[in-house]
This record gives sequence, structure tokens and C-alpha cells, in this order.
Amino acid sequence: FRLALRRPPRDRPTPHHRDPGCLWPLPHALTSSVEQYPLNPQTFAFDYGKHSATQQGCSLLDAAFRRYFSLIFPDYTIMKTASKIYCSVGFPDNLSVSAGQASLNAATVWGILRGLETFSQLVYQDDLGSYFVNETFIEDFPRFQFRGVLLDTSRHYLPVHAILKTLDAMSYSKFNVFHWHIVDDPSFPYQSRSFPELSKKGAFHPATHVYTQSDVRRVISYARMRGIRVLPEFDSPGHTGSWGKGQSDLLTPCYKGGAPSGTFEVTSVFPDSYIHLGGDEVDFSCWRSNPHVRAFMQKMGFGGDFPKLEAFYIENIVNITSANNKTSIVWQDVFDYHERVGRSALSVVEVWKHGCYLCKVRQVTKAGLRVILASPWYLDLPGPTHNWARYYTVWPLAFPGSEKQKRLVIGGEVCMWGEYVDATNLFPKLWPRASAAAERLWSDEKQTSSVEKAFPRLEDFRCKLLRRGIQAGPLNVGHCKHEYQGV
Amino acid sequence: FRLALRRPPRDRPTPHHRDPGCLWPLPHALTSSVEQYPLNPQTFAFDYGKHSATQQGCSLLDAAFRRYFSLIFPDYTIMKTASKIYCSVGFPDNLSVSAGQASLNAATVWGILRGLETFSQLVYQDDLGSYFVNETFIEDFPRFQFRGVLLDTSRHYLPVHAILKTLDAMSYSKFNVFHWHIVDDPSFPYQSRSFPELSKKGAFHPATHVYTQSDVRRVISYARMRGIRVLPEFDSPGHTGSWGKGQSDLLTPCYKGGAPSGTFEVTSVFPDSYIHLGGDEVDFSCWRSNPHVRAFMQKMGFGGDFPKLEAFYIENIVNITSANNKTSIVWQDVFDYHERVGRSALSVVEVWKHGCYLCKVRQVTKAGLRVILASPWYLDLPGPTHNWARYYTVWPLAFPGSEKQKRLVIGGEVCMWGEYVDATNLFPKLWPRASAAAERLWSDEKQTSSVEKAFPRLEDFRCKLLRRGIQAGPLNVGHCKHEYQGV
Repeated sequence: FRLALRRPPRDRPTPHHRDPGCLWPLPHALTSSVEQYPLNPQTFAFDYGKHSATQQGCSLLDAAFRRYFSLIFPDYTIMKTASKIYCSVGFPDNLSVSAGQASLNAATVWGILRGLETFSQLVYQDDLGSYFVNETFIEDFPRFQFRGVLLDTSRHYLPVHAILKTLDAMSYSKFNVFHWHIVDDPSFPYQSRSFPELSKKGAFHPATHVYTQSDVRRVISYARMRGIRVLPEFDSPGHTGSWGKGQSDLLTPCYKGGAPSGTFEVTSVFPDSYIHLGGDEVDFSCWRSNPHVRAFMQKMGFGGDFPKLEAFYIENIVNITSANNKTSIVWQDVFDYHERVGRSALSVVEVWKHGCYLCKVRQVTKAGLRVILASPWYLDLPGPTHNWARYYTVWPLAFPGSEKQKRLVIGGEVCMWGEYVDATNLFPKLWPRASAAAERLWSDEKQTSSVEKAFPRLEDFRCKLLRRGIQAGPLNVGHCKHEYQGV
Repeated sequence: FRLALRRPPRDRPTPHHRDPGCLWPLPHALTSSVEQYPLNPQTFAFDYGKHSATQQGCSLLDAAFRRYFSLIFPDYTIMKTASKIYCSVGFPDNLSVSAGQASLNAATVWGILRGLETFSQLVYQDDLGSYFVNETFIEDFPRFQFRGVLLDTSRHYLPVHAILKTLDAMSYSKFNVFHWHIVDDPSFPYQSRSFPELSKKGAFHPATHVYTQSDVRRVISYARMRGIRVLPEFDSPGHTGSWGKGQSDLLTPCYKGGAPSGTFEVTSVFPDSYIHLGGDEVDFSCWRSNPHVRAFMQKMGFGGDFPKLEAFYIENIVNITSANNKTSIVWQDVFDYHERVGRSALSVVEVWKHGCYLCKVRQVTKAGLRVILASPWYLDLPGPTHNWARYYTVWPLAFPGSEKQKRLVIGGEVCMWGEYVDATNLFPKLWPRASAAAERLWSDEKQTSSVEKAFPRLEDFRCKLLRRGIQAGPLNVGHCKHEYQGV
């Protein structure tokens, strides 16, 4: 796995360029020099290393090679393949560009995807348009395994293209989970195989504002090709206003002692091993008003304890989910309800409420449960869209606790709720602010604690996003070589 | 000027549609009925009335007819012209659709442009895609003559396409002035004929981040075709940081007793009778530090009174501008400086500072000067992008003063400063919030004082903007029939 990178002639003037070690998120170990190697788009190619565990025919990497060629050389198409960078699966993760050789190694194909992104960011152009990469050695790995972005497709419908483009942008920042908050009170855009009436009556429009089975497959496949898992959320028993329109008997499953039978469909349509069950913000006043509910509670011996009923409901769904070999994620509300009724069925809790969120992280990890942190990353909340530093200066492990507790914090998530967000403003609201969170979740905290040091690197990364067609908002006065042209 | 609009057959069910009287901004006098007339895109056309003062060959209206045909019938091209709506210039302003006849009359071609916009908003589609217009009579006119939008192309460069699209959107809300804050401290993108070095050294990039003479002509012509004047601002003597890069002797014209000779170029390149001279936020500390400036002030008898020097400078430019038959507009700072030195040379003052802006409006009009109000419409300031009501509930004449004073308030302006705004986020920040200000500047205040009444109409108008390709941001949970597809 070697690439003959030609040295520049000695008399060539150093071209004007940005700091060539400019990467986002920052790798854990990086050394580089001023030694430059020119890259010729007409002879450049990615290829598999001789000893790589995957070889040509691995559709995931074959496609990634083509994709990253276009990202690095936007004005070129692949011509011939005289000089190559060899990528090898089944080796310790590292990227090396040195002395006329380049190689990218990773334990898994997913690591190769991350490394391709890193390599693509290392390449830069001089003022004449020639491509260069500097001598570089990188060892890298994610700090947290769960690095998510939540999109809400119920409060506003997001066209499939907007979701796919978000997945593109996510991969540029090394996010690996797309949390699809697909339905909620305002609309039910998921076109169910088992319950087609749900979207027929619950979507904003039964034909134009829905996600068909084919749309869902497309999103899952597109995400997978970019190393992103799709975590579906069918939030219940709250946030189900839109469900009732198509299934009039659906909104009271709890006092029947059963659980919505749609669970089976969800586990088969969405292949990820995780499923988000929601469970937040349940309004007990409706249950309280219902004599059937109250009778059921008497029978079960719950008395007037509605959190017990909520816990009973969630426990049922968690058990069904678990019987389908899936791991449940729930919003922190469920953890709070379960304080009195046992938490044995729970496994992953997403902390979202404001205030002392690290107190809650401490509490949940103390109970031995895994945590995903979302509270500090609600990017839809009002505020200037350039306030990235607020999302950067988040310290997920800064709570008193054991090493074991810290290890239970499996990651974090950027949330983009949809009250005031749709395809018209999603991108400048999300990018590059989500990238600030992405670096927090990927990089070493000590190396990335300074907002001042990060700023020029993030500005450069934002220009890279623009160059790739992502409508990332400006951080301050200034310009990019390639401005956004999509208007 | 008549159009045979066919009545719908009696047994036709009333199609589901939004309130057909849904117009933005609201006309001053409107009556309509539930009587519907179908429109056939294949036989529909605009034409000139027999007695119209302008006839075929008026390029402005010929182009407007073609433009509005496409806006009304996005999926059709003009086929034949069997049924016509006749437009007549030189008549009292009104729009009438009734009893199988339709006509649009206006005193000027500009009035026809506004009426075409109104007519285009009257047309709606049923669920099957058929077009309709209801019986309607409208008499309309603008409340204020100056209805502006300011774009700042110095803090971020805006591609020409983004400016043209803004002009489109402006015409949909009946704005009529594009205030082009073309240069400022961060960059000088205007490619001057007389001083090419200014953009060569002062622009972010001398080739890709400039407005050529041809770009400027294109913007002016595109604006004119939509009834919009281009008001250029070359702000001085503050906000000129970028000027000095290309003309090292330019940043101290005051103590030479002269004025920048570029004024002549500006008056010839920009044909509008108004010119904005800036004059805001002058930092005296630089002048104070300069011995030449201090010596000049001694010679002129100004002592240490820097506002006097500033006044002297502005007076010179105002006089030159006036000698070129142009009317000057200045920011309120100049009015404030002139308190001690006479305001005879001033004519139009733009009020922009926060606090009690109506106190300032009162003060300026009391001095007999005209006012443009900008203070309450700084849309670039941080805040949720759906807070349109804040820009709607502005009452420009709610100050104690004479009728004569009120008449001196010639209008208002939405300002979109560029610190954190570029082509990536301009549109969802500007629209439909600017439209809230547009209605305030166009419509009768008493008829448009209720936020609650305006909301569904503005939501409908926002959907119309999306349908026309304007990336207008969402106001709340919901959907449009045609969502934004531009991602």
C-alpha cells in the first residue's frame, strides 16, 4: 500500500495556502511537516492494500473511493490510475503520507470511511489550482462511540433530499448516528406497511408529505454507505397526537394491558440494533380523566400513581423491543418515573433536560445505565446562529464519578427540533454549529479545549463544507474562496 | 380592457382552497365575493387596454406580463391569447375582476407592476390543479413612498444571483428601494472605473469577490424592471477601512479641504436621484491622533471640536452631491453632529439607533427634514427567525407632532447587516420577516394592527414565496403544499 507522491522541485515557490494540518474534528495524534507533495488528479486513485481484509467488490468502500475522489477533486472525473493511495482493512488505524508513500489503515471498513474524510481534508489547492498534500502521520479514533444528530420530521416535513444531504454533512464531521424523530403530535409522515391509515390521515399530506418504505430504505442505505446508523424514534405514549387520526383505537393501548403492535414492523424496517422509544413529556391529565384508565389502575394495584402506569407501559414496550433483539433508548423522563418502580428493563437513557444536566448524567451512570447526552446541544433553540462556542465548551465527563461511570457515557447528540425549522433554514442552523459538538464527541478534550485555537480551523472547515455544497452559515465577517452558490 | 372569465357550472363543488382574499401586503380597499371564475392557462394573457398610455413595446410591462404569467401558472408556458386581462396606464389605480371581466388600471407603469403582483396573489388552485380567481375589486396605493431593504455586501460578499433573487422577493412584498451598502471596512467589492485599485486591493478577492461595472448595471436594470430603485451607499468618513488598501492617500481627504473625487463616478454609475452618504459611527480618535488633521482644524477655527470637522466634511460631500443633482441621505449621526453647525445642507435623515427612535423621528421632522425609519427593522440582530410580529407591530407615526411633520416621514427600511449573514442564511433570515415590515409600510395601519389576524395571511404568503423559489423560513409548526426543494 504505497503511493509515489512526487516531491515538488526545489525552486518552486511555496504556494499560499491555509494551514495544511487543518482538520475537523482534530485527530488524536497528528504530526505533519512543511514538506509538500503535489497530487495529480489525472493519475490519482484510491485502491485496496495487498493485505487488506476487504478488496475490490466491497461496495461500501468502492463507492467511498469514488465519492472522496470527487470531494477532493471537484472539477475532475477519474481518468487513469497511475498513482494510488492504498487502503487496508484489518490493520491498526493510521494514515500516513510521507516520503513518496501514502497509506490508510483501519481495523474496519468504517475506520477507512473516517480516514478517507481525514485524508480529503488534508488535500489543499494553491492559487493556481494545483493540489497538494503535506507529509502527515495520523493515529485517530473516536472519543465517544455514539455521535448523533436528531432531525424532527413531524413538526415540519423534510424532503428526502434534505435528509440525504444532512447525512453527507454528518459524515464530514464524523457523526455516526442519525436519530430520526420521524413522527410526533403534528404529523405522522411514516407510511406504515401495517397501518397505512396512520400517514393517510396523520401526515400533513398523504402523498407529498410522507416517507414511503422505499424512502426509508433509501435513507438507511445512504446512511450506511457513509458509516451512519439510523436510529428510529416512535415516541410514545406522549407525543402521539397524529397517531389517533388514522387509528382511532390506538391512543389508549396502556389500559388494554398490551403494547402497540406496530413495534414488530419498526424492528424489521429499521435494521439498527438500537431503537428509540421516546417516553418524554407524558401529560397525565388525559389518563386521569379516563374512567377506563382509572379502573385498570385499580385492577393493577397502582392506585392513583400515574408514573407507575407510565412505567408499566414503557416496561412492556422495552420488553417487546428486547424480545426482538433490539436495545432500547429512552428519554430521561422514563428514568425519572422508574425511580420508584425499578429500572431493570432500561439500558440507555438520553439526558435532554436543561439545568444541571451533568447531575443527571451522574445519577443515571450511578444506576449502572448508559447515557447519551443531548441537553447542551439543542441547536434549534433561539440564539445567534454563529454561537458555536457554546456547543464547543461542553465537558460531558466533568462530573464526580468512577471510571466505570464515565465509561457509561456512550456519547452525545445534536438535536434539531422542528417547530421553527424546515428545509429552508435547516442547513445554516445546523452547520457548522453541529461540527462544534462533533469535535467534542470525537477529539481529545485537552487538545481541543481552546475556543480561540479552534476558531480559524472551524472557519476553514466551514469553507470546506461550502465547497461541498453544504449551506453552512457564516461565523463572522470574512469570506471563503468558494462561496455558496446555491441561491 | 376586459377579459371573458367563464363562470363555473352550478353543480361544481366548491373546491377546497385558502381564503381567496389572501393578499400580502393588504390593499387599502378590497371587496370580494365567493363567486369564482376559472382561469385557463392555455388561453390566458395580459394585454394593454385600448386607451392605455403605454402599449406593446413598453419593455418594462411586456417583460412583467411574461414574468407574472409564469408566476401565476408555474407549470405552463404562454400558448395562445384567447382571453385577456387588460392593463391600462394613465387611469386611477384599481383592479377589478367581476362578471366575466377583468381589468387593471394604474396612473403609472409602476402601479401596473404592483397590481400585477396583487392579481397574481388572487389566483389560486383547487386540489385538482385548476386555477381560479374570485370576484374582486381593489383600490390600492402605498402608505409610504420609501420602502427599502438594505443589503451589506462588504462584511460578506453576496453573489450577484443572491442580490437578484432578493430583488424578486422584494417585488413580491412591494418594496421599492434596494439600499446597497456596497462597501465598508472589511472589503471594497465595488470595481471602480476611476479607482480600480480600491477593489483590487480592498476586495476579499480581486476577481471572484467583486461587482464589476456590468454586474452593477445588471442589478440596476433587474431592479428597475421590478419597480425597485437602487440606492447606493458609499459610507464615509467612517467605515472606510477597506478604501485605504487600494488608495493610500484617500483616507484623509478632509484635511485637504476637498472631498473624494469618486463622488462623480458614483453619481453617473448609479442613476437614482438619491444617494446615501453614510456618515455613521465616525471614530474621532484617529483624527485626534493626526497632527495634520489638528493643524487643519486650527486653520479652520474648529479648535478641538471634531463633530465640527465631521460636519464640515459631510457638508462638502452633500454640496457636491447636490451639484450633481442628487439628493443626499445620511445616517442620523450626521443630524446629531449638525445640531451645533446648522443643518441647511441636509435633506433626508435615516434614523437607525435603538432606544426611543420615535423621539428622534420627532426631532428630525421638527427640524423640517425628511426621515427614513430603520431602527425597529434590524433583521440581522440575534433573535428567533420566526419573530415576525416584532417587526409588524411598529407604528412609525406614533409620535406627537404636526401633520406636516408626519408627512416628512417618507418611509422605512429593513436592514440586513452582514456580520453573520451571507448567501447561506440571507433568505430564511430576511423572508418572510421583511414582509411584515413591508405591510407596515404599504398598508393602512388600522386595518393591519392585529398580529392574530395577520398570521394566517402571512403563513399563506410564505407558502407563495416558497412556491416561487424564495427560501422563506417557517413561522411555526405546519406545512406548505409546495415545500422548498432547493436543497
